[in-house]
Amino acid sequence: MKPPENTKRESPPFIDVNAGRTAARISAESPGALDRIRPYILSTPVLTSRTLSQEAGSRVLLKCEHRQTTGSFKLRGALNKVLSLSRQCLDEGVVVASTGNHGSAVAYACRLLGGKCTVFVPEDVSRTKERAVLDLGAEVRRQGADGLEAERTARLWASENTLEYISPYNDIDVIIGQATLGRELLQHADSACDVYVAVGGGGLVSGLAAVLKHFSAEIRIVGCSPANHPVMDESVRAGRIVDLPYRPTLSDGTAGRLESDSITLPLCAHLVDDWIRVSEAEIVESLRLLGRQEHMIVEGAAAVAVAGLRKDSNRRTGDKIVVLCGGNVDKEIMAGILAQND
Amino acid sequence: MKPPENTKRESPPFIDVNAGRTAARISAESPGALDRIRPYILSTPVLTSRTLSQEAGSRVLLKCEHRQTTGSFKLRGALNKVLSLSRQCLDEGVVVASTGNHGSAVAYACRLLGGKCTVFVPEDVSRTKERAVLDLGAEVRRQGADGLEAERTARLWASENTLEYISPYNDIDVIIGQATLGRELLQHADSACDVYVAVGGGGLVSGLAAVLKHFSAEIRIVGCSPANHPVMDESVRAGRIVDLPYRPTLSDGTAGRLESDSITLPLCAHLVDDWIRVSEAEIVESLRLLGRQEHMIVEGAAAVAVAGLRKDSNRRTGDKIVVLCGGNVDKEIMAGILAQND
Repeated sequence: MKPPENTKRESPPFIDVNAGRTAARISAESPGALDRIRPYILSTPVLTSRTLSQEAGSRVLLKCEHRQTTGSFKLRGALNKVLSLSRQCLDEGVVVASTGNHGSAVAYACRLLGGKCTVFVPEDVSRTKERAVLDLGAEVRRQGADGLEAERTARLWASENTLEYISPYNDIDVIIGQATLGRELLQHADSACDVYVAVGGGGLVSGLAAVLKHFSAEIRIVGCSPANHPVMDESVRAGRIVDLPYRPTLSDGTAGRLESDSITLPLCAHLVDDWIRVSEAEIVESLRLLGRQEHMIVEGAAAVAVAGLRKDSNRRTGDKIVVLCGGNVDKEIMAGILAQND
Repeated sequence: MKPPENTKRESPPFIDVNAGRTAARISAESPGALDRIRPYILSTPVLTSRTLSQEAGSRVLLKCEHRQTTGSFKLRGALNKVLSLSRQCLDEGVVVASTGNHGSAVAYACRLLGGKCTVFVPEDVSRTKERAVLDLGAEVRRQGADGLEAERTARLWASENTLEYISPYNDIDVIIGQATLGRELLQHADSACDVYVAVGGGGLVSGLAAVLKHFSAEIRIVGCSPANHPVMDESVRAGRIVDLPYRPTLSDGTAGRLESDSITLPLCAHLVDDWIRVSEAEIVESLRLLGRQEHMIVEGAAAVAVAGLRKDSNRRTGDKIVVLCGGNVDKEIMAGILAQND
């Protein structure tokens, strides 16, 4: 598909003919995935935001995935993956590395289906997220300074012990699981709406965009990143996975370096129409707006998508859909933001 | 209707034969009211609470009226009342006395329909609530130490100026407006569910109970009050409006003395099956649970209903419905509660 005329980005410097085929496969397999995982997930509500609709001048719908079981969309991909594994594989145990939501999701899926789960987390992971994983009966290993180091250790350990390692995004079954969120949006999406979603590893945006673009090529997918860590945005621009220096962001759900062979890079290059970067101040402002005006507590990554909508200079006139991808925010952080003066 | 066998309260010491007739009228007129106000209100979502369902051992549904326009159910009654007034009456202006939500709701309804509105508030009203009213274009007058004094002044001023005074609960059109919330619950309520709702003046519980009891006499209505100010609960026990000493409560939405002739007293005596009182600590605990587990920010009165469910020793086995009646909580209060340790 041609990029829309209002895109600010030039064509990516590479064309991967397989990306279109992979996207078609994701879309085609998403109904089956939704049937498979439906007994275990919530079909999360889609609510109109009065405040954001007034601000944007057209209807803004919030996909409330922060109310998903385990508090984020990650459960969709985790379940679709775990349901694809053999009984023996589950008994031996699966291994994940995660800043939190993916770990919680896989742990939850394993407990549900009677499998073992070991979660590798970076040393600086928030206590809220660690506790969520422990409460789900998984084993937690704090190793590595960041997500990628924890991930390397996890992969090595899984390989040495011949256990299944589950990537949070670089896995077609995980992406097809995230695509089920796109399927739930089909009944709400008009054929030329703008869709805002935070991009970390790119699993969520790849999955939902594959479904929505198949439904209507006129739907505009806007990938939103924290300016402190726009790693997929930079990678798509460069045409290869790039490595960015670590800068802290409230959007911990999108943080972490990318796997060098990630299948989400060509998918993002193929499916995302526009990229927007938001500052930490803009993330805070959106967290506060959602809390005060919409009475919702969401995590930083969800606020990245809201902030992306708010600063988008290429908005069209139709409906906007903002994916509130998760709700697992540190209580002290949220309390501080709520109490601040305007 | 006979009280269910598990009621902890003896029969009220008076029987008002008119209450049954009034309830029947409220129920009969609620569909027309819903048609009238539907263009201006949100049909608020009903969401399953995973945490509360696990705790209660059966499905708990949350009626998310805290997401209603103006942030509370009061808009329903305000609109139904204002829509019943003549053009001349609206041009001359209406008068309300309110701790906040009723004032915001009538101000919003007047702005929507092009009427004037003067809101009398007690001197200690929260800034959040006062600002909400001012932003809606109404005139605000801070008069009186509490809601009843503000109300007396407002009534006098309205009478002197031959303007329409709108009571927050002692008005059949207002109650019929609140009954529309009951109509929206009909598609979710099973015929023997327990319904928890905070009771202040009794307008909301009277309206929704009239509709739900008409649908099924087996539905159990549980009136929940802050132990610091259970004025309707006490009044029903006494068989007359009683006056309680002022004790502060986080549930400011249910605070305030009752009008001596309130039609909600016989309605509450007739329609409410059980009464539950909750402490301030229990209100805080429920506010925190909703924030952390359900990612929702609600006001104290909404948490009173949640706390009522949690301490109810007479729960039956079926579905529970909890009315989250409003979301207008002071940001500093909510921030403090979120940040507290468990």
